[in-house]
Amino acid sequence: MKTNPGRFFEEYRIGEVIDHAVPRTVSGGERALYHALYPARGALYSSDAFAQACGLPQSPVDDLIAFHTVFGKTVPDISLNAVANLGYAEGRWLGAVYPGDTLRAQSEVIGLKENSNGASGNVYVRTRGLNQRGETVLEYVRWVMVRKARADAPAPDPVVPVLAKVVAPADLVVPEGLTFEGYDFALAGEPHRWSDYAVGEQIDHVDGVTIEEAEHMIATRLWQNTAKVHFDATFRPDGRRLIYGGHVISLARALSFNGLANAQMIVALNGGAHANPCFAGDTVKAWSEVLDKAETSAPGVGAIRLRLVATKQGAEPFALRGTDGKYLPEVLLDLDYWALMPL
Amino acid sequence: MKTNPGRFFEEYRIGEVIDHAVPRTVSGGERALYHALYPARGALYSSDAFAQACGLPQSPVDDLIAFHTVFGKTVPDISLNAVANLGYAEGRWLGAVYPGDTLRAQSEVIGLKENSNGASGNVYVRTRGLNQRGETVLEYVRWVMVRKARADAPAPDPVVPVLAKVVAPADLVVPEGLTFEGYDFALAGEPHRWSDYAVGEQIDHVDGVTIEEAEHMIATRLWQNTAKVHFDATFRPDGRRLIYGGHVISLARALSFNGLANAQMIVALNGGAHANPCFAGDTVKAWSEVLDKAETSAPGVGAIRLRLVATKQGAEPFALRGTDGKYLPEVLLDLDYWALMPL
Amino acid sequence: MKTNPGRFFEEYRIGEVIDHAVPRTVSGGERALYHALYPARGALYSSDAFAQACGLPQSPVDDLIAFHTVFGKTVPDISLNAVANLGYAEGRWLGAVYPGDTLRAQSEVIGLKENSNGASGNVYVRTRGLNQRGETVLEYVRWVMVRKARADAPAPDPVVPVLAKVVAPADLVVPEGLTFEGYDFALAGEPHRWSDYAVGEQIDHVDGVTIEEAEHMIATRLWQNTAKVHFDATFRPDGRRLIYGGHVISLARALSFNGLANAQMIVALNGGAHANPCFAGDTVKAWSEVLDKAETSAPGVGAIRLRLVATKQGAEPFALRGTDGKYLPEVLLDLDYWALMPL
Repeated sequence: MKTNPGRFFEEYRIGEVIDHAVPRTVSGGERALYHALYPARGALYSSDAFAQACGLPQSPVDDLIAFHTVFGKTVPDISLNAVANLGYAEGRWLGAVYPGDTLRAQSEVIGLKENSNGASGNVYVRTRGLNQRGETVLEYVRWVMVRKARADAPAPDPVVPVLAKVVAPADLVVPEGLTFEGYDFALAGEPHRWSDYAVGEQIDHVDGVTIEEAEHMIATRLWQNTAKVHFDATFRPDGRRLIYGGHVISLARALSFNGLANAQMIVALNGGAHANPCFAGDTVKAWSEVLDKAETSAPGVGAIRLRLVATKQGAEPFALRGTDGKYLPEVLLDLDYWALMPL
Repeated sequence: MKTNPGRFFEEYRIGEVIDHAVPRTVSGGERALYHALYPARGALYSSDAFAQACGLPQSPVDDLIAFHTVFGKTVPDISLNAVANLGYAEGRWLGAVYPGDTLRAQSEVIGLKENSNGASGNVYVRTRGLNQRGETVLEYVRWVMVRKARADAPAPDPVVPVLAKVVAPADLVVPEGLTFEGYDFALAGEPHRWSDYAVGEQIDHVDGVTIEEAEHMIATRLWQNTAKVHFDATFRPDGRRLIYGGHVISLARALSFNGLANAQMIVALNGGAHANPCFAGDTVKAWSEVLDKAETSAPGVGAIRLRLVATKQGAEPFALRGTDGKYLPEVLLDLDYWALMPL
Repeated sequence: MKTNPGRFFEEYRIGEVIDHAVPRTVSGGERALYHALYPARGALYSSDAFAQACGLPQSPVDDLIAFHTVFGKTVPDISLNAVANLGYAEGRWLGAVYPGDTLRAQSEVIGLKENSNGASGNVYVRTRGLNQRGETVLEYVRWVMVRKARADAPAPDPVVPVLAKVVAPADLVVPEGLTFEGYDFALAGEPHRWSDYAVGEQIDHVDGVTIEEAEHMIATRLWQNTAKVHFDATFRPDGRRLIYGGHVISLARALSFNGLANAQMIVALNGGAHANPCFAGDTVKAWSEVLDKAETSAPGVGAIRLRLVATKQGAEPFALRGTDGKYLPEVLLDLDYWALMPL
């Protein structure tokens, strides 16, 4: 058979390194599409002049463009037969990506644990995004539940990696040259600086976007993500396509501009859960909570740790889990990340 | 509160200058999307080679890309609490915008008049679009009806600016170097030149486009326009989103290629009214009327003043107003502009 | 009348050369959109680094971007009054197209034959796509059935060109400098090389994509294709728009990556039929059959002749025609082309 059946649980080996296919050169086209698909308005990612005033050579592409591009490349090897996308950890953005850069992806299998039912198992991979100079621009751990092809395949010795709950502030990488000392708050869109945010503060981002089938499919293809459930209406009786979780991440992040306009660069992904599936017709809103703050060595640059929650219609303000400890059905996403903000 | 509640009528002051947020660098990406969202075919905006033959360094981005980009930036400060977008005047394109240019926007409050009901008032602003060199590339006056936050806020002294009904031909700015002396009518798509159009002539542009929700939202986000009603289906009982008026402007202008292929560059916006709201599912068509003609000092370049009317299904040919003087319900847009055309 | 009524059968003359309007400069924006509209993943068209390793200066735009752009320009002159798009032959890609190149199109009328009903006739044109240096980058023959404007217009002497059933391998043009000697199969996405494919082999490409109205209209506009039936819902009682046949070609070609990832460049179009109309809501899948193989003079580069069939929901595996010899109703496209593949 010449087509890719995807990998099954028993086909992964601890320590194995997978080079993912189809490198991708990004251009102003990817950026324009990103800004047309999500209400993204971060000034650093919108204007060359603004980025240059912050010490960068030009405006980089949105950090989630880098994430989605790298993530998309891993799908054919990691999650084509995945039952569930279970979590993220230890994500770090290590270098900015500019138009003209070419991204490829590589994953190392760092954990394997068969489920007690013998029908599937969890696969942990550390994925790296590399540019045309071989520099790692992004890395993160993801774990997914993958089906077994043969129920009688022997279970591997279980290996569950110990993962940091949070990327330590000392491990955050600030892009070379970045300074927020001459930061123009008026052009950025909001006056609120790092010192204006308090740990524990919650922000309702107010705006909502109703999703159409065409939009999430255009986005998901843009990242060369081939997971069938996002595109083929015949998979479900109701003809709806499951929306790529990354679409909800980008939508929520873009909505969070309203209240967090100065949380400019994502530098770490501490964790994340796709709490419930999202479908076309859902109206997505977002709220954030300040989880922590830290200083950096870059001039004028602080770090802020944020919980970003995406919800759909019917959600109560700032409600996350029910009394049973489970995510409420209106919660779509619970993401934990570090961003850089002017002091 | 950290999110932007928008401004209310009583918060504007005559003479105040507002620097709008989030400058934007445009690229070939924005152009490709524009051409994918609207059936735009103006040769000057499609081909570097054609633009160079007309004396320009390369193909500029469509003049309405500049307009929408600048307009979008003003929304958070001007029209987030607007009840209605009332009119445009004295619009002029002062310099071409090329891929790589960065646009920002600035508005001066030039008029304020509270309504007799005491619940809202009209705000007049003169908005300028500036490039990375600080050059004004576009300016226009817009007035909107804005809600008051507090009914008891005192009414300001009424100031209603005196606005020109039409931009005088002598005030039109032809881009430096532009010449239509070697204009290639075959490549441009139609043989009709400036002298072939008569004042009073009406042109039915024939083609129609049925609008989908995904398209107008993609377009509106591309301009970083954040007005909630365009994106959130929960605002209306029928779940439809109000289509950004600028989407109809661009759609109608692109449709007018068929009959006005040589009306290449928009150089002035004399006035405009969004006569009725537009929704997904509407099939938009357009017709034009020649209102005036003028000569310019550029070689081979004439100016033509056009009324551009967008209609939806059910419209009668060239019908604009009812016997009561009001716009007919099938009329969506009535725009008055100057364009440049080969003599 | 200033609008374009399109040409009718009696207006074409044998030997006539038509210069089509609106040249188009392509950029990374067109590529990004192409990759967002179709699940295209050919490494040569995705990565500058990969293309450079194959001897090209950079990644060209997808060969079907060149085809659609050229095809779109011919519509106002050739097929605005077409009843049916009957066939393609002798298509060849003669030179790669890179971001920054400007394409225009030219057609020569090479055949005319009135139908026996006297109401329409077949028009055969040889179309060439030219770049800004006047080099032909693409050529193909297309024939369409076009209505007559006047039933009493005299029938022309019938001329039916003799067209090659298949482009001979010796006539395939391999882009200058192309080499597949250092071809990286891991980055390309599949291990299968030219020698792994057998004539007669059939490949089910497995994946399916359900089409939305917004997507096909965005795509069709991107090629500046103005055929009314693709955009105006009022043309049909059910409000559906007929999907541009080229949209199905690109979708099927992109789906064929899964099993034919190394069939990198399309170099010839031997023939093609749009077997049945396609509408939004259809779920498109694809299968291929290896029709022939040939060697080329370029290092490491083989040619493979493929039948590409697009189907919609309800299609049986590899079913093409019924017992009556006609295409089955679930078959949308039957395309015959040559591609280049590493030996």
